[in-house]
Amino acid sequence: MTIALVLLLFAAVLGLAYSMFNFFVVKRMDEGDERMQRIAAAIRLGANTFVTYEYKIVAKIALVLAVLLSILISWEMAAAFLIGAVMSGAAGWLGMKIATYANVRVTNRARTTNSLGQTLKLAYRGGSVMGLCVAGFALLGIAIVYLIFGVLLGQYQAVLSDTALTNWWGLPISFTITLSGYALGCSVIAMFNRVGGGIYTKAADMGADLVGKTEEHIPEDDPRNPATIADNVGDNVGDVAGLGADLLESYVGAIVSGMILATELFRSNLSAFGADMLQNMMFFPFLLAAGGVIACAIGTAIMLGQKELSDFPHKELNRSTYISASLTLIIGFIISLVLFRPMSAADLDGAGFSLGFVSPWVAAALGVVSGIAIGFFAEYYTSYEYRPTKDIANATKQGAAITITEGLSVGFRSVMVSVAAIGLTILLSYVVSGLYGVAMAATGMLSFVAATVSVDTYGPIADNAGGIAQMSKLDDDVREITDTLDAVGNTTAAIGKGLAIGSAALATLSMLVSYLFSFTPADEAMVLNLVDPLTLAGGLIGAAMPFLFSGILINSVTRTAGDMVTEVRRQFREIKGLLSGTEDPDYKKCIEIASEGALREMRVPALMSVGAPVIFGFVFGTKFVGGLLIGATLTAVMLALATSNMGGAWDNAKKFIEGDNIPGYGRGTDAHNAAVIGDTVGDPLKDTVGPSLNILIKIMSTVSLVMVTLFSRYNLLDLISGLFK
Amino acid sequence: MTIALVLLLFAAVLGLAYSMFNFFVVKRMDEGDERMQRIAAAIRLGANTFVTYEYKIVAKIALVLAVLLSILISWEMAAAFLIGAVMSGAAGWLGMKIATYANVRVTNRARTTNSLGQTLKLAYRGGSVMGLCVAGFALLGIAIVYLIFGVLLGQYQAVLSDTALTNWWGLPISFTITLSGYALGCSVIAMFNRVGGGIYTKAADMGADLVGKTEEHIPEDDPRNPATIADNVGDNVGDVAGLGADLLESYVGAIVSGMILATELFRSNLSAFGADMLQNMMFFPFLLAAGGVIACAIGTAIMLGQKELSDFPHKELNRSTYISASLTLIIGFIISLVLFRPMSAADLDGAGFSLGFVSPWVAAALGVVSGIAIGFFAEYYTSYEYRPTKDIANATKQGAAITITEGLSVGFRSVMVSVAAIGLTILLSYVVSGLYGVAMAATGMLSFVAATVSVDTYGPIADNAGGIAQMSKLDDDVREITDTLDAVGNTTAAIGKGLAIGSAALATLSMLVSYLFSFTPADEAMVLNLVDPLTLAGGLIGAAMPFLFSGILINSVTRTAGDMVTEVRRQFREIKGLLSGTEDPDYKKCIEIASEGALREMRVPALMSVGAPVIFGFVFGTKFVGGLLIGATLTAVMLALATSNMGGAWDNAKKFIEGDNIPGYGRGTDAHNAAVIGDTVGDPLKDTVGPSLNILIKIMSTVSLVMVTLFSRYNLLDLISGLFK
Repeated sequence: MTIALVLLLFAAVLGLAYSMFNFFVVKRMDEGDERMQRIAAAIRLGANTFVTYEYKIVAKIALVLAVLLSILISWEMAAAFLIGAVMSGAAGWLGMKIATYANVRVTNRARTTNSLGQTLKLAYRGGSVMGLCVAGFALLGIAIVYLIFGVLLGQYQAVLSDTALTNWWGLPISFTITLSGYALGCSVIAMFNRVGGGIYTKAADMGADLVGKTEEHIPEDDPRNPATIADNVGDNVGDVAGLGADLLESYVGAIVSGMILATELFRSNLSAFGADMLQNMMFFPFLLAAGGVIACAIGTAIMLGQKELSDFPHKELNRSTYISASLTLIIGFIISLVLFRPMSAADLDGAGFSLGFVSPWVAAALGVVSGIAIGFFAEYYTSYEYRPTKDIANATKQGAAITITEGLSVGFRSVMVSVAAIGLTILLSYVVSGLYGVAMAATGMLSFVAATVSVDTYGPIADNAGGIAQMSKLDDDVREITDTLDAVGNTTAAIGKGLAIGSAALATLSMLVSYLFSFTPADEAMVLNLVDPLTLAGGLIGAAMPFLFSGILINSVTRTAGDMVTEVRRQFREIKGLLSGTEDPDYKKCIEIASEGALREMRVPALMSVGAPVIFGFVFGTKFVGGLLIGATLTAVMLALATSNMGGAWDNAKKFIEGDNIPGYGRGTDAHNAAVIGDTVGDPLKDTVGPSLNILIKIMSTVSLVMVTLFSRYNLLDLISGLFK
Repeated sequence: MTIALVLLLFAAVLGLAYSMFNFFVVKRMDEGDERMQRIAAAIRLGANTFVTYEYKIVAKIALVLAVLLSILISWEMAAAFLIGAVMSGAAGWLGMKIATYANVRVTNRARTTNSLGQTLKLAYRGGSVMGLCVAGFALLGIAIVYLIFGVLLGQYQAVLSDTALTNWWGLPISFTITLSGYALGCSVIAMFNRVGGGIYTKAADMGADLVGKTEEHIPEDDPRNPATIADNVGDNVGDVAGLGADLLESYVGAIVSGMILATELFRSNLSAFGADMLQNMMFFPFLLAAGGVIACAIGTAIMLGQKELSDFPHKELNRSTYISASLTLIIGFIISLVLFRPMSAADLDGAGFSLGFVSPWVAAALGVVSGIAIGFFAEYYTSYEYRPTKDIANATKQGAAITITEGLSVGFRSVMVSVAAIGLTILLSYVVSGLYGVAMAATGMLSFVAATVSVDTYGPIADNAGGIAQMSKLDDDVREITDTLDAVGNTTAAIGKGLAIGSAALATLSMLVSYLFSFTPADEAMVLNLVDPLTLAGGLIGAAMPFLFSGILINSVTRTAGDMVTEVRRQFREIKGLLSGTEDPDYKKCIEIASEGALREMRVPALMSVGAPVIFGFVFGTKFVGGLLIGATLTAVMLALATSNMGGAWDNAKKFIEGDNIPGYGRGTDAHNAAVIGDTVGDPLKDTVGPSLNILIKIMSTVSLVMVTLFSRYNLLDLISGLFK
């Protein structure tokens, strides 16, 4: 055990140390001329101010939740919850920090070197800070929770000896609940960051585009646009801080759900294996993740160690991802060998490992393959290299309405292939390693998260760098370099999104299984029977939840964007000389509107995800909540895929038009206007709704798992039916 | 038994006879001046031609399917399938016929009397032909199938005596399979009519609006618009023929699923009741429906018997619906009393009737109440009397993009309340009368279908009448009368849509239960276990199917509408004197484009719904298909509600703007343009996608039920796992 925990801590510290190193390397770079510095400072200040405010609010909510949890469940669980919250918050904060330092330095690198490869290297270094942070903090938290509550406070030993632990008022608690608490902490912070950041960035983006591009016909990031600084702040608080917290949450969810499931399998009579086997089944997911961090650190070092990067950023970035993924799989194989080779055949059979000691590794590899497949499908449906996005681009000739319907159609149709990949992964990983295999597929999918987050973060850094170039009125070729990097970022980010959605589906399902285990008697088969009327009714309500949640989120963005449009129009109308460039706009007012909107609107959807399963649990009991979880998972996965892909496709269809790829329908034409409308509609779908849906189902399943011991005992329905007996 | 069948036949004949009477009363009316007659004849010809073509294609497909079914399953089932197809086809055909006679006569009535009440009465008489036809044909078919296959060929007796019937090659068959065949016939025709008609009407509508309103700024139904006749033809083939077949299918589905479920409950050991009880449980749904037809005939007669109708069409129509619904419930109570009062307490208990003989009636009444509730929720989210649609209307000030996102948000948010009503109905009707109660709720919901279809059909008749008035250049006050009637039709139709969606969910679930029964051993509890990996994978794929199906449909409409836009633009460009009114457009070319598009595009989605469960069944077996059905049902209900409501809301937001309700943002403004774009995006969603999704899940569940005896024996997965044993 000691070796495993040492390895885990080593990987966490390695990731964080390398991240800090890159942080300071980036920060040492030159910021460029005075105007660039001034703009960057404004963006940095905006982002800092917003995230500080946001964290203050979130901290209060997290503390209230922690107090409630410590009263209702256990102080250990509440403490783990806070550790998760801190880890998630820290990753988001540091990522945002480095992104707001890196952006202007990337602009300056492009300006001074005029080299695509040189600029790419710096942007990627900036992104890698976030990537390594996410993995490092996640593993650090797991190590702390495992060490303190599992080892020192004996919760893990209690699992082995089947000792019943209880909280202060006699409710049974367990190590799985503490682990869930950690995951829940990460998820709740991620939800606030994603939703708050998502509303901020999209309201600013939509407000800037709707008036700037559609009405005033000035280019993106034009300094005359009052919302342009807010838009660039948004990239940092939404696409960087939000994304970081989101992927940390997914990563922790995947690892922890596997650990919890192993424990539940051990306790259930469905499987039969010994204590050593359990320990190794708990170690495998986090050691695989630890191996992944080491692999990604190597992959990043190889990339950054090169003197010169080529001028093909797509190739460079994919190479870095593939190196990291391959190394992770190699290390994973060794871990599987070391952990499971010594186990007896009875243990392996008892856990459902049909391919012997390599079984969990095969399941993890299946996860990697299907995650990359989902990413590829996303690329197919959203890149203008392929037909769907080209069809949307051609539809713009027919006006805005046809552009929208064609995009809806592409998004809806795109769902099936990815879902088929997830379905196949479930079937195959189950055949290979039973239910545990499904959880390992999720872990595998995210094991090289550091590499994918690095790539995901490099995109908004390049985007911001372009904005700064535009606002600082630098030469067109600077903007050209950052535009190329940004465009590549959009495509490579597809893989990251695919991994996040796929792993969310698998991790939620494995949480759902643990949920069922936790109240199914040990000698009964585990059942989630959808023809039971209670479960069915729960399934229906659950299936409606992601729709309600998405509707609320879209409304929040739309409302805030509407305020922004009104303000930007006012400034164009009232500030004379704004359009001619003789007068500066009031950037600050726009930043305030985005901040206030985001902070006002983020509470309802975030609290809904936490509250719904609890309330339904206390009213209708366990069967209903089981239905709720599966219903929500099914529709959330569909909506997440559909909204991400349609948004991406509209975005790139617009880029296709702007690249003059359809003769006679370039910038300034009606077709371009239609394309901009499509892109704007897609904005909240792909950057606010889509990514939040993953978190929604994970929060719902984790909260249910944590609260089930409570509402399986105390619920209104049992109370009423008790009265009639 | 004889009395029950006599009553059933009586009701069917009464409905059809009254329908024919109204048909000839309408046809006898005056058609107005020569220009009106010419336009009406053009619309009639267009509708006739299209439906004739469509039916030829559909007849061929139906015959091929019937041959396949008679080989694979049984000739009885294939014959019942064809009977269903004929009934559904006949109802659609007659409804379309009367609508194309009634439209111009309604225009003329408005012109000659200038009375809203008089015009309403004629339009409603036209609508009632369709309403009574739908119910009459549906019951006639049930009577024939029951009489021939159940009684004369002894299939019902075989259920009672537990005799195993087999087909020509030894596969076990049963009365439930024959009944399913009848329902399947209705559903398959409905799918083609809905999809074909839906593509036709929306392609024409969108084509007409996109160029006419948005680009050339001429009013709706302007005779200068080349697509205007096609648009009016579309109302008849989509909103009338398509809707009629659709609701007949829902109605049959609800009744037959109850009959099938009763049989399956009788055969299973889960319930214990005698042969008399079974017979009465089979009679109850169709007698309730027969009572409903009589009630609706009375309700219609009361309305049409009045000398003068008031000038408040909303009140008049609602009164007619409420009279019909109340009478249906009263008759239903008597039926429940007569059928179940004599049954023993053991029988009632054995069937799960917890409130004694009134139990199934209570379940049916719950269905009526929740159907009306869903209709009210639809009205809330789509009428501009309420806030959601007003919010969309206000969003138009912010441009097209915000109009679209606000509409998406309204549609998504609207899902939850209706789903909660469905969920509650399931829980309560189950408590009252067990699984049978859930089916009775569906039957109750649709028991007064004749009244709701009459109201639904009167809408497009009034719409067409307005079109004819406009094209014939009649006075503005004629158009005013028809516009008022049309607007009311939009709102009252909401109740019809609510009933269709709610009953589809309940009927599909009861089919799903019958599906499970049909392969679950009699002494085992019936389980659809969503944590079984096969079922779960099926659930994921199933949940993706409605998205894929919707995406394909939207694409079909968009593609055909795109062709239409190109053609209409061409005519405006090439035909000199078209805009000034000196030259006539080429209406025929537009009619051809809509027809060809609809006939070309309707096959894939329709055949997909039939083929998918069969293919998956033969590959992955029963568990997977069970998951497929529940997954598809969950997402189809959500998407149907969301798309119908968002489409309706955009439509009425546009009407709100056009009614000059927001000062400064009326016709011709940018806000109006944005509203038109919203309406156009909503068109395929509310009139093609939404209504087809109901049919999709019913076809999928019926096909699965029919084929399960086959693929539970022969499937690839069993074959493969057999090899490994």
